[in-house]
Amino acid sequence: MDELKKISYLGPEGTFTEEALILYLKKNYEKNNNFSLNKIEKIPLPTITDVIKSVDRGEVNQGVVPIENSIEGSVNLTLDVLTFESEAKIISEVVMPIKHQLIAKSQVKLKQIKRIISHPHATAQCRIFLNQKFPNVEIIAANSTAEAVKRLKEEDSESAAIGTKIAAEIYGLEIILSDIEDNKDNKTRFVVIGNFIAKKSANNKTSVVCFLKKDKPGSLYNILKEFAQRNINLTKLESRPAKKNLGDYVFMIDMEGHVHDKVIYEALESLRTKVYLVKLLGSYPAWKE
Amino acid sequence: MDELKKISYLGPEGTFTEEALILYLKKNYEKNNNFSLNKIEKIPLPTITDVIKSVDRGEVNQGVVPIENSIEGSVNLTLDVLTFESEAKIISEVVMPIKHQLIAKSQVKLKQIKRIISHPHATAQCRIFLNQKFPNVEIIAANSTAEAVKRLKEEDSESAAIGTKIAAEIYGLEIILSDIEDNKDNKTRFVVIGNFIAKKSANNKTSVVCFLKKDKPGSLYNILKEFAQRNINLTKLESRPAKKNLGDYVFMIDMEGHVHDKVIYEALESLRTKVYLVKLLGSYPAWKE
Repeated sequence: MDELKKISYLGPEGTFTEEALILYLKKNYEKNNNFSLNKIEKIPLPTITDVIKSVDRGEVNQGVVPIENSIEGSVNLTLDVLTFESEAKIISEVVMPIKHQLIAKSQVKLKQIKRIISHPHATAQCRIFLNQKFPNVEIIAANSTAEAVKRLKEEDSESAAIGTKIAAEIYGLEIILSDIEDNKDNKTRFVVIGNFIAKKSANNKTSVVCFLKKDKPGSLYNILKEFAQRNINLTKLESRPAKKNLGDYVFMIDMEGHVHDKVIYEALESLRTKVYLVKLLGSYPAWKE
Repeated sequence: MDELKKISYLGPEGTFTEEALILYLKKNYEKNNNFSLNKIEKIPLPTITDVIKSVDRGEVNQGVVPIENSIEGSVNLTLDVLTFESEAKIISEVVMPIKHQLIAKSQVKLKQIKRIISHPHATAQCRIFLNQKFPNVEIIAANSTAEAVKRLKEEDSESAAIGTKIAAEIYGLEIILSDIEDNKDNKTRFVVIGNFIAKKSANNKTSVVCFLKKDKPGSLYNILKEFAQRNINLTKLESRPAKKNLGDYVFMIDMEGHVHDKVIYEALESLRTKVYLVKLLGSYPAWKE
């Protein structure tokens, strides 16, 4: 495990993935005496595939991508690239509430606002708020919440954007209404990937993919038997279509425990005798608020 | 089961959901002698929740929404609204390849194009194509592919949009390059919902949600036992977080068969004794190409 010098993430700057990256660094590295956020080079890349492959190519030490419930794009892509196109491992997870901010130039008053710019997912997630407070404003789409906030710089004071706190900071703009999302339980799970298996911590999770050759009744049942018999707790389970020549069916399984725990290792070993392929996506510390 | 007069769908006009709706009508109703597409009122609604609730309120006979892999927005929302906020049932499914078209005013030449407008998901799904053929064009975001195509009407001949065939028809524009998506296997599954259980056909699927009170090892294993013992084939399985007071864990299960098949009915009855709640989302004909 190299010293952390470079970390890539799904860009552009000022998105939720950058917020997750900073949260991850603070939580995991701030206790080190000689740690400073400024010493680490954060590299925004345009796609999830680019981030994961930058780790595979050794261009960065680690990378951060959304994996569940993201508002920034497809997270099936993260699972697919990790499963089919990469040997990088999940080394950490970050679960972050998705908070939307209404951002404008300083001293803009609410009743002046005639246009609100954002990514379509963000405007969809603030629909009730927008209907109530801004029934007549024009909703303008942007390719990311960060692009929306950046674009405000060129706009007059009749425009606002929906974006992140960090984007407001980066572009020197003001948050005029905080936490405007309709659903306060909206969370996104991000994963940090690297070229190693993370060390065991107090509470761990392990993610694997199983490839099955035949979608026959009972096959998933036989898989789960391995975990049930050993009292291993599954935290997530999802069937996914397989790519050609790689089995007919794929199951993504998250469980409590670390692959270096004897019981987890043995369950996976036994599983390998029953299915076409088991691929370890990683063992890593479970996220705690 | 009422005569089909009104059918709602996730709008606006000209999106993939409207294409799926038309495919569904042609496949299921065209064999009727007195059927005509024009006799059915198609009602675009702004959100998935609106579509599902329009069925619950009896304002329409049926509704069409995306449920998996959609590029138009969150499909978790479809599962959540059907699970937690609706008594409407899935009565049919439509699986449609997602094809993107490059659309412009007539006689626009490729090398004239300086701007391409679309929903961020659509541009993301054509990223390789865009990098190769249009490395220097400006990518402009729209709130839907339909909005992108509609906006072309006001643009000069240096603009193009990425959208659906049906949108090109609706707005009288030309497809200048067909099927420009990077991934030819990209499909979206739509469901048709109504206020009844669909009749048995030759090949059926049944979707249910199980609510579990404790996320304890083996509980999912016990659920699957009911299906494995009866040789019922599961086609999809997904764990999802539960809402408060409705159990701690939720499993979405799709299986082959109809709830009016004795074996399916008995499996569900037995399941009800093991879990907190089983909710039937519907039994419906399995999609055939």
